[in-house]
Amino acid sequence: MPRVIDHDERRRQIIAVARQLMEEGGFAAATMRGIASAAGFANGALKHYFDGKDAIVLETFESVLTEMTEQTPPIREGVDPREELRSFLAATMPLNKHAIAGARVLLALWEHAQTNDVLLERYLKHMSMWKAELGKRLTAVLGEIPADDLQALIDETVTMSIGANVAALLMPEEQIIARYTRYVDDFMDRIEQLAPSPA
Amino acid sequence: MPRVIDHDERRRQIIAVARQLMEEGGFAAATMRGIASAAGFANGALKHYFDGKDAIVLETFESVLTEMTEQTPPIREGVDPREELRSFLAATMPLNKHAIAGARVLLALWEHAQTNDVLLERYLKHMSMWKAELGKRLTAVLGEIPADDLQALIDETVTMSIGANVAALLMPEEQIIARYTRYVDDFMDRIEQLAPSPA
Repeated sequence: MPRVIDHDERRRQIIAVARQLMEEGGFAAATMRGIASAAGFANGALKHYFDGKDAIVLETFESVLTEMTEQTPPIREGVDPREELRSFLAATMPLNKHAIAGARVLLALWEHAQTNDVLLERYLKHMSMWKAELGKRLTAVLGEIPADDLQALIDETVTMSIGANVAALLMPEEQIIARYTRYVDDFMDRIEQLAPSPA
Repeated sequence: MPRVIDHDERRRQIIAVARQLMEEGGFAAATMRGIASAAGFANGALKHYFDGKDAIVLETFESVLTEMTEQTPPIREGVDPREELRSFLAATMPLNKHAIAGARVLLALWEHAQTNDVLLERYLKHMSMWKAELGKRLTAVLGEIPADDLQALIDETVTMSIGANVAALLMPEEQIIARYTRYVDDFMDRIEQLAPSPA
């Protein structure tokens, strides 16, 4: 039987390996040689699937952004809006091993977005979607509040999420999880104080 | 008259050039060739002053951390403690062109600290000092509050500062300045509500 090579499957496999190497050792760890070796390819064989390291890097970032988008589903009807807000916020914080590992990729993404307009645009598009969903959840709890007050709450939590992801790379895991769980709790308390009293 | 070469002065000059290149174009822009050219050295002449790019990079980060430490002076007696807190907080946010440019260097520093223990330790030492000074300023306004509440406020502002510095690289300057000026204002309002009423 002839050996069938599924080109797209191979590409996905290479990206998964690149991402894992980046999650384990940061951007510098994802060398072409290392990716080829970990994916079981001969050195140089990656060229059949990607034009070069830049193409692999961009596709790796794309896979992370796609996953992040999947983790921010549209707000659900019939669910306690406070719970919808809390779980959304918690999902953007480095509160488990998987999210902390992902922070290494995010840091590399931000570094590259500075000099790659396509990547920057892609990231800002993700961020717009993220902010819009956050805004819906805040409004579901708070009712209509002045637009700039809503924007300030959105900006704060987005910035906290970015900062927490960087901090997650520099500090011990248990400190990070405790610290940002506390932040989510405190933020929800503040929201509770801003929310209209039940009628 | 013999030409006198001040070795330390030359080193400082090289670091200043490396830092400027990084502030303008991110880490990738600070190549050995680019630094040599911008500093007016023949290509290869940097070797007389630094062992290689890693040594230049580490010294550049050191110069940034030293400057950041200088910008966080001990709390002053006889000054309104609210003003001491606000100005300290504002100094850690990307609220002007110089600070926004500096964020490019910080991002490269965080990236490198993941895989360089000496740099990580140096950064964490800076962060400890920063948090201690922030704690003194919060206590000067709030009086003694439970240690974990104080810690949560410190962690939040440090994380916001890190996140704001990343955001500063991805979004237009005027948005960044407006957004984080608003955050500082809102944070001070929250502190005001926590502070004991004047007797």
